[in-house]
Amino acid sequence: MNNIKKIYFDHNATTRVDDEVLATMLPYFQENFANPSSGHSLGITGRQAINQARQQVADSINVLPSQVIFTSGGSEANNLFIQGAAKYLKNTRIIVSAIEHPCVLYPAREVMKDINQRLDLRKLIVNESGYIVMNDVDKALAESPAGIVSVMLANNETGVIQEVATIAEKSRKFNTLIHTDAVQAFGKIPVDFPSLNVHAMTLSSHKIYGPKGAAALIIDKDIILNPQIYGGGHENGLRSGTENVPAIVGFGKACELSKLRIKKFSTKIKELRTHLEAQLIKMGAIIFGAHTNRLPNTCYFALQNIEGETLVTNLEKSGFIIASGAACSSATPGKSHVLDAMGVDPSLARCAVRISLGKSNTLEQINDFIVALKAICKKLKRINSIMVEE
Amino acid sequence: MNNIKKIYFDHNATTRVDDEVLATMLPYFQENFANPSSGHSLGITGRQAINQARQQVADSINVLPSQVIFTSGGSEANNLFIQGAAKYLKNTRIIVSAIEHPCVLYPAREVMKDINQRLDLRKLIVNESGYIVMNDVDKALAESPAGIVSVMLANNETGVIQEVATIAEKSRKFNTLIHTDAVQAFGKIPVDFPSLNVHAMTLSSHKIYGPKGAAALIIDKDIILNPQIYGGGHENGLRSGTENVPAIVGFGKACELSKLRIKKFSTKIKELRTHLEAQLIKMGAIIFGAHTNRLPNTCYFALQNIEGETLVTNLEKSGFIIASGAACSSATPGKSHVLDAMGVDPSLARCAVRISLGKSNTLEQINDFIVALKAICKKLKRINSIMVEE
Repeated sequence: MNNIKKIYFDHNATTRVDDEVLATMLPYFQENFANPSSGHSLGITGRQAINQARQQVADSINVLPSQVIFTSGGSEANNLFIQGAAKYLKNTRIIVSAIEHPCVLYPAREVMKDINQRLDLRKLIVNESGYIVMNDVDKALAESPAGIVSVMLANNETGVIQEVATIAEKSRKFNTLIHTDAVQAFGKIPVDFPSLNVHAMTLSSHKIYGPKGAAALIIDKDIILNPQIYGGGHENGLRSGTENVPAIVGFGKACELSKLRIKKFSTKIKELRTHLEAQLIKMGAIIFGAHTNRLPNTCYFALQNIEGETLVTNLEKSGFIIASGAACSSATPGKSHVLDAMGVDPSLARCAVRISLGKSNTLEQINDFIVALKAICKKLKRINSIMVEE
Repeated sequence: MNNIKKIYFDHNATTRVDDEVLATMLPYFQENFANPSSGHSLGITGRQAINQARQQVADSINVLPSQVIFTSGGSEANNLFIQGAAKYLKNTRIIVSAIEHPCVLYPAREVMKDINQRLDLRKLIVNESGYIVMNDVDKALAESPAGIVSVMLANNETGVIQEVATIAEKSRKFNTLIHTDAVQAFGKIPVDFPSLNVHAMTLSSHKIYGPKGAAALIIDKDIILNPQIYGGGHENGLRSGTENVPAIVGFGKACELSKLRIKKFSTKIKELRTHLEAQLIKMGAIIFGAHTNRLPNTCYFALQNIEGETLVTNLEKSGFIIASGAACSSATPGKSHVLDAMGVDPSLARCAVRISLGKSNTLEQINDFIVALKAICKKLKRINSIMVEE
């Protein structure tokens, strides 16, 4: 299978490591391979590399390095916040949106069972565009004192950007901790921790052209968390274990590059997406969250009566890699809980596919894609009509 | 600071990634970078790579691939077992040895507090050689019904290899789960899961010339564990989060290479260590666990009246990287709890340094080291005598 020639339109699932990022990582596998906890000069070199990466991550969202807790991934960071904060809650409610990633939804569900039987989990409803309903935020906060509100900054499927700062303001009036999973937003739009007014935020490396295996939970300095992994006391006691130095170094570099490129990138990618969607709309496609404030790279659409899986398979044969439904978010993909929460008819939801553009994509690729898509639709309609005639 | 020319004798802290391992990893950063949870061919390539690595890890210790749970590190794997199994215990005691790594000791201490207030933690005593005292295992099991026994296969500081199979046999008579942290033993001596007769075992990549960021918890198929990280349901629901494909691939390759090389490696390295210790003994060094069954690469010794830290610093100036005390195990090094448990006098424990040899070390390096060590001792004694005279 020749993977190299395929056009990759699945950047919300993961990204190719940037050349500069990989070059920055490489010395830490062999030349500077020491354990950063070692007191000798080789160890100190590793420690300095981690410190630099911590500064780069911090700079990219405008916080202090001491606010950055490195973890092995976004799922771990989200779990660390939800489970780690839940232990210290006085108020017994956890509020999440109905469209959170499973790595927020499931730990929230688990702490209900395990940590504190008194806790209750409240899911915020979203409207048909994919926005969290603000009246429901007010309602959820007023119903019962909440310890945590966790809402994603942008959804991985639709790309819809939530009004996190507004939700944060509402939450803070009730002394509720506010966390945002910014994994999908980070690197696609400018993300500024202070102006979002949250207590905690999750970032991930492999969505921003950094390596897999590094991520961060960003916390307000006053937040008290329980660790999940105990041991040598790394990351200020909040996350023990020998640091994955090359991945952390790569994450730092990816943050630095992202900060430099974000404005140009988001402008360019939005132009491509606008062009793509104009063509799709001409073909009769329904675009989920079409008229919302969305990530500039994400196009989540359906062509009626063409199953998403069928489209994905046929497009791949034509050389285009896209995603169907919720494949991006889970090792066990099923139907999309996001479209379900948006009230999309299941028969249409089954037709959903996601294109998520990245920095290497071009206008030519979009045009080639549209040609391929039209040919596939024509072919599938012919097959359908033959089947109907028979 | 020129790190390249230094001789590295700190392989129990971490190892340089093997050339073949790195070469195996590299395609997974850029060429085959996809998310293994994606259904398209790029995703499937990643999934297949993980499957192959799982097979390589399984083969190296003689288990089935389905018994391998990948984690981000040994600390995470140990925590996953201790915390994950503790949730389902009927018996209320957890038994660990007094010389376990903090990433076993501390989660064991935490589950006492948090998961089940009824639990009690019992530490097994070790003798002056560093062996777990078998009578104390019998006593600990007889005193109170235990849910978990966790004993390391080999200690990171002394290298002393514990009689895990015997402890497993004793534990199983009480229907107690037996886990072994094999992070230090694996890759230095042959490790066979079935013959150790344990229910669970922890392995790590970066101690065996693999990359940081990958490790495994190996479990008996009947073990029920609670996950620590919830989300997409990866690793059979036991460890969610996008897999760190390059690190996992590298870990698999490192396991394969280790299996091929282990006999030759352990013979060669033991010869070097024997030569080293003969010279050290002539210099009056005290070798901790000298007459035990130890890892062939580890030499933990003290030269009386020469502080470990002083020796480490001076040796580094002469071009040799070694470790002092417990620096290897912790981001917050202090005194060695291992030497403490062995009843070593604190004034001698302060002099402890560890040499841990690796596959690139040579007889010439050992000889050069001894020359350097002698010169340093002479210098330090002269300084001491001047200070005494003054």
